[in-house]
Amino acid sequence: MSQPPVPDSRPEPSGIVTLLTDFGAQDTYVGIMKGVLWSRATGLRSVVDLTHEIAPQDVRAAAFHLLHAWRWFPRGSVHVAVVDPGVGGGRGILAAALDGHVFLAPDNGLLAPLLAAGARARRVEVERYSLPARSRTFHGRDVFAPTAAALVSGEAFEALGPLAEGAVDLRFPVPPLVDDGRLEAEVLLVDRFGNLITNLPREALEPRPEAWTIEHAGLPIAVRGTYSEAPAGSLLGLIDSYGLLELALRDGNAAAQLNLGVGARLRLSRKA
Amino acid sequence: MSQPPVPDSRPEPSGIVTLLTDFGAQDTYVGIMKGVLWSRATGLRSVVDLTHEIAPQDVRAAAFHLLHAWRWFPRGSVHVAVVDPGVGGGRGILAAALDGHVFLAPDNGLLAPLLAAGARARRVEVERYSLPARSRTFHGRDVFAPTAAALVSGEAFEALGPLAEGAVDLRFPVPPLVDDGRLEAEVLLVDRFGNLITNLPREALEPRPEAWTIEHAGLPIAVRGTYSEAPAGSLLGLIDSYGLLELALRDGNAAAQLNLGVGARLRLSRKA
Amino acid sequence: MSQPPVPDSRPEPSGIVTLLTDFGAQDTYVGIMKGVLWSRATGLRSVVDLTHEIAPQDVRAAAFHLLHAWRWFPRGSVHVAVVDPGVGGGRGILAAALDGHVFLAPDNGLLAPLLAAGARARRVEVERYSLPARSRTFHGRDVFAPTAAALVSGEAFEALGPLAEGAVDLRFPVPPLVDDGRLEAEVLLVDRFGNLITNLPREALEPRPEAWTIEHAGLPIAVRGTYSEAPAGSLLGLIDSYGLLELALRDGNAAAQLNLGVGARLRLSRKA
Repeated sequence: MSQPPVPDSRPEPSGIVTLLTDFGAQDTYVGIMKGVLWSRATGLRSVVDLTHEIAPQDVRAAAFHLLHAWRWFPRGSVHVAVVDPGVGGGRGILAAALDGHVFLAPDNGLLAPLLAAGARARRVEVERYSLPARSRTFHGRDVFAPTAAALVSGEAFEALGPLAEGAVDLRFPVPPLVDDGRLEAEVLLVDRFGNLITNLPREALEPRPEAWTIEHAGLPIAVRGTYSEAPAGSLLGLIDSYGLLELALRDGNAAAQLNLGVGARLRLSRKA
Repeated sequence: MSQPPVPDSRPEPSGIVTLLTDFGAQDTYVGIMKGVLWSRATGLRSVVDLTHEIAPQDVRAAAFHLLHAWRWFPRGSVHVAVVDPGVGGGRGILAAALDGHVFLAPDNGLLAPLLAAGARARRVEVERYSLPARSRTFHGRDVFAPTAAALVSGEAFEALGPLAEGAVDLRFPVPPLVDDGRLEAEVLLVDRFGNLITNLPREALEPRPEAWTIEHAGLPIAVRGTYSEAPAGSLLGLIDSYGLLELALRDGNAAAQLNLGVGARLRLSRKA
Repeated sequence: MSQPPVPDSRPEPSGIVTLLTDFGAQDTYVGIMKGVLWSRATGLRSVVDLTHEIAPQDVRAAAFHLLHAWRWFPRGSVHVAVVDPGVGGGRGILAAALDGHVFLAPDNGLLAPLLAAGARARRVEVERYSLPARSRTFHGRDVFAPTAAALVSGEAFEALGPLAEGAVDLRFPVPPLVDDGRLEAEVLLVDRFGNLITNLPREALEPRPEAWTIEHAGLPIAVRGTYSEAPAGSLLGLIDSYGLLELALRDGNAAAQLNLGVGARLRLSRKA
């Protein structure tokens, strides 16, 4: 009388929903999504804001943040990401499942890094989960929130819709090996502290990140283990909490001081 | 042995409190209100932020947001709105009940649109619900939060105080019919995306909103079904998720491009 | 068969964790901390944001806000404050217990006002509570969140580590009595409304705060009971909700109008 195995995609719901949008804090769009969630979900414990300060319609930044945040939540969580320039048009809505988590987002590349990491995808049958009067401008409220509520309440990932084929792709730039022994990094994100976070993963600098030097404007910048190893007011590289190379300014704002932003390129060389 | 009917004003508390203020995010005023709620309410499930970025003392914007957000929450919710230039003076505090929801706000017009929509109002007996040491500057903490906590814990709306007479009024401008077949709309709100949200409800443009054209600076702007029906970078009108006419810029910020804000007027005419 | 007394430091956990950081809203750092909390804590009811808009690395402002906010939460709450310029270096992590509340912060002065108020301090055994792979840049996620989760789940304060000796100190400036009958106040904080909040406590102006006058730029500013006692558009002093003297502008922004900020000094004299 053994129990059938529970497939990976159906862990017990954790009761946690996360929200990631470009809706900002000045309007009530996020609050309204939470209203729909609390109205419809059974077993909901908390709705956690990842961030709502994605620049309007910056799908790429949303994909970066979602990719690096979800794994810190309990299995059985539902992650809703709505950065949706195509709302009301023909774009579909995707659900993805990875390691016991479920993700909902427009089919615009937002989930592509998760799919590349092995997530299975389904195309949500929008009519089935929407609120009765679905607007053409606010699917966060009318489609995403009620679909997430269904998942929290026990709906199976497999029930959401058919397997998704041909989802929109989005790739973060892969750091090239420039030539013998040198690397190039590209800035993907500037955080609140002005840290310049690049696409270069720790693995590219192993076994000893400190053996590398960032070259900027003709000056070498040492890669260190943490902020406080650098003299006050000086620049440093380090492997940050995302596991990526970051260019920082001890006790200051590197992006402002260097006037660099997303898309900037940095060269690295190994010390002799 | 039939049960007496439960009056509309006393549905089971949902355990949800929403907050709408002009307190912003940089101080701890909102956090402190939540501390009082969690200290005193039994059965509280979640405190949901509608927004705290109302411009300081902009009662009108607060009234707009509250009017359009509350209905997305479960019946039995308590909605607390504190935009309160008159704190510590003689202004009273109102409670309103509508469709199973309860609202608390200063008597400064913030609840007037809800009263116009049929809400019953009572004047809160402040001394009875306040914290023991009531300040004259922070009634969010000292009066509103403990009153909301009492409601969440089961206090009846009718117990809050006597029926309110002569509450302060506030009206959104009613769109006039300018002359035969033309309409005028006034901008009530600019949202995070720079969408210009007007006072013209869908009903005024029925049966076919797309039959209307917005005139601005001598140029016609088509009313469409959704953002993605407009060419990239072009202006459009549409009925938004509030059910109101909105002037938007596809993939851009209409308010910034047109240099228009709250109070701006737009003319509409019906296509020939 | 009497029960042993429960020591003050071990009230029943309230299930509430508060967060106070300089992480801002644009990144997912705060959301990730919440993910770790919800993943690891049993009995967690809510994670409440005090504020995340502390200016980067402004330990002093964080200490002010924590000192004035915690008492509004239920006993048994855990308050986590992460403003941490020294992350990854040699600085330790302190836990403090006061009146049934527990506090976690870097040993950089953030908890000093609470210790001065009588809190007992322990030095957290970081290795024991950290996530398995502790980064050197994000202890909010890797140390503070799991330690708070342990406390919420029932871990005793006394178990966190040895008694702390020699914690880093931080003092708010004490208002001096300038000379016979005059006082000097220093601005500690400018809030969202532009109110200038000083270090002068109500007690210094007793028995009758209204007997004092603030002198600024040769002009006297009356101390009043609340904002609405001042004529519209005029400056006033008052005892604010922190119990501190505040300089405000009725229906306006005093800091902007006077071009004053943190560190500014104000003189007060008693009316003749």
